[in-house]
Amino acid sequence: MNFNAGPATLPLPALERAREELLDFAGSGMSVMEHSHRGGEYEAVHERAIALLRELLGVPADHEIMFQQGGASMQFALVPMNFLRPGSSADYVVTGAWSAKAHAEALAWGQVAGAHVKVAASTKEGGDGYHRVARVEEAHLDAAAEYVHWASNETIHGVQYLEVPRFGSAPQVCDMSSDFLWRKLDVAPFAMIYGGAQKNIGPSGVTVVIAQRAFIERGRKDLPSILQYRAHADARSLLNTPPTFGIYLVRNVLEWIKDLGGLEVIERRNRAKAAELYAAIDANAGLYRAPVEKDSRSVMNVVFRLPSEDIEKRFLAESKKHGMVGLKGHRSVGGIRVSLYNAVELEWVQELARFMKDFAKQSG
Amino acid sequence: MNFNAGPATLPLPALERAREELLDFAGSGMSVMEHSHRGGEYEAVHERAIALLRELLGVPADHEIMFQQGGASMQFALVPMNFLRPGSSADYVVTGAWSAKAHAEALAWGQVAGAHVKVAASTKEGGDGYHRVARVEEAHLDAAAEYVHWASNETIHGVQYLEVPRFGSAPQVCDMSSDFLWRKLDVAPFAMIYGGAQKNIGPSGVTVVIAQRAFIERGRKDLPSILQYRAHADARSLLNTPPTFGIYLVRNVLEWIKDLGGLEVIERRNRAKAAELYAAIDANAGLYRAPVEKDSRSVMNVVFRLPSEDIEKRFLAESKKHGMVGLKGHRSVGGIRVSLYNAVELEWVQELARFMKDFAKQSG
Repeated sequence: MNFNAGPATLPLPALERAREELLDFAGSGMSVMEHSHRGGEYEAVHERAIALLRELLGVPADHEIMFQQGGASMQFALVPMNFLRPGSSADYVVTGAWSAKAHAEALAWGQVAGAHVKVAASTKEGGDGYHRVARVEEAHLDAAAEYVHWASNETIHGVQYLEVPRFGSAPQVCDMSSDFLWRKLDVAPFAMIYGGAQKNIGPSGVTVVIAQRAFIERGRKDLPSILQYRAHADARSLLNTPPTFGIYLVRNVLEWIKDLGGLEVIERRNRAKAAELYAAIDANAGLYRAPVEKDSRSVMNVVFRLPSEDIEKRFLAESKKHGMVGLKGHRSVGGIRVSLYNAVELEWVQELARFMKDFAKQSG
Repeated sequence: MNFNAGPATLPLPALERAREELLDFAGSGMSVMEHSHRGGEYEAVHERAIALLRELLGVPADHEIMFQQGGASMQFALVPMNFLRPGSSADYVVTGAWSAKAHAEALAWGQVAGAHVKVAASTKEGGDGYHRVARVEEAHLDAAAEYVHWASNETIHGVQYLEVPRFGSAPQVCDMSSDFLWRKLDVAPFAMIYGGAQKNIGPSGVTVVIAQRAFIERGRKDLPSILQYRAHADARSLLNTPPTFGIYLVRNVLEWIKDLGGLEVIERRNRAKAAELYAAIDANAGLYRAPVEKDSRSVMNVVFRLPSEDIEKRFLAESKKHGMVGLKGHRSVGGIRVSLYNAVELEWVQELARFMKDFAKQSG
């Protein structure tokens, strides 16, 4: 039972298919990773992955779907580089470690480029940091901002927007690395969505970017081409050699989602898993303490504390004996973190909930 | 028989090992790509890959070995971004399409940053472009340049430096994407070497960067951290989530090189393959024409022309019937290209040479 925060567990059918085809893809006698990215065999995979994303999410025709490299961290730099000109500004909403990092990287670029990068809202408190998302009303938004950046889910702090907010009238740019494809989403209002694949849809090394064509066109045209979204979109993500095997695995995961019944089914699964786990926490509130406010509790990353670090260590050691891995909280905050990405099975969560109940009894 | 220019053929033992372990890595019951990049299982792979590179190439202690993403194309942008300050300059030696692209990307950044990016030498001619490497004597080098950039091998034009040159006294930065690890190399004189993995050492999606610590330290400190070599080196390439499965495959390929006997054996294999193929061309010089000057003939990518495009089409169609793929020249230059990367077997080349002889007889 793999509850890793990312890279994370992948659907067994997607991996089994990869194993079966590893030395002989589509009867070619070669691995898919040995095919040219300009050849028909790989291109079919590439186009299928894009088509599945478009279909599953209902991505509108005026939004481009791109595969890039470097994870969300590279996007933290590329977004301000593309869209901030000298004298212009961007607003950042900070609700956890990742949106704080996005802001820090943008701030560095802003100083290089002579642009203003502001914190429109931050929910940071003392102690272990962030316990809720930001409300639109509390954000100090600049209508003239080139964009507003926020993160839909914070893996370290277990904070998630369960209702999709809209921060003012500027273009909305959202880091969805850790909850991309957890449910249906209306993509139309977003100027840009991006995310590393390694939580919900594939292995590390692939980044999905979905962006409005008109927004991309606003980007700087004088940067090296590899840094421009425009160039990637124009080249259908074949501007340079893409991470072909990673995209192939993303394709396999997307096929699995479709076979399962699409994002409605995925959402039901995900909500059931999170409900099971938060119920186990709340039922034993004397032992388990969830620091996140109820309406910001993440469906993807459930974080909680026990009364002491020693008890937390014992909890981790005993859960490991039950075959559960990846439950240790991020080193910056400690505690327990349970990641419930798409490929995590409900049965694993039920087993974890039973374990938590037994552990509480023992400790009671 | 896969003669692709990259992504390219990989050693069968490296792929078989990946298949065997795909669902259960090191007895963990999970795929290596499902492991956390901060966990012991993956970290052992990561460190082993770095250690094997250091051992096989004899990388000196004052050179850092990094894994990055984005291929050589991302390095084309990152090198000038890190090392060019307003008013400073860099020299580029252009001997084919890739070093020309590196220059173009640097030029774009130079204009953004107010720095000078010069062509120190170019061997471009009319017709199909580049037919030889540049001689050190013909380069107009600026001793005050921040660095000199050149490419050791040009995949499209089949041009390679068979002797390692030194262009003046400025730090040498070399794109070795397409001939990295083809033989032993004295790394010490290089400030930086980089290359996408997808030719000689792994799948696409992993870039290897080897750079002198002192050179890295000269880089700008005000860029977003993900763009700074310093940050990647300090974090042992775990600054953000690396492409774990790609690095695992690189590890498998490096183990294969070591098992085979190291780079001396690899070099003998590679020289034997290239000798076989160039002999087949020269023995039928009436039909096959190698446009590259003899002392610049690439050991990695052998390019040649036939008397007409129709005959070239027939050559490609018939070679395909013999089970040979990837022989079509790059779309920008046409003709035939045979890539002979490390994992290509001598027997395949011998079969191709026999086919070429037969084809010449038929056409004679």
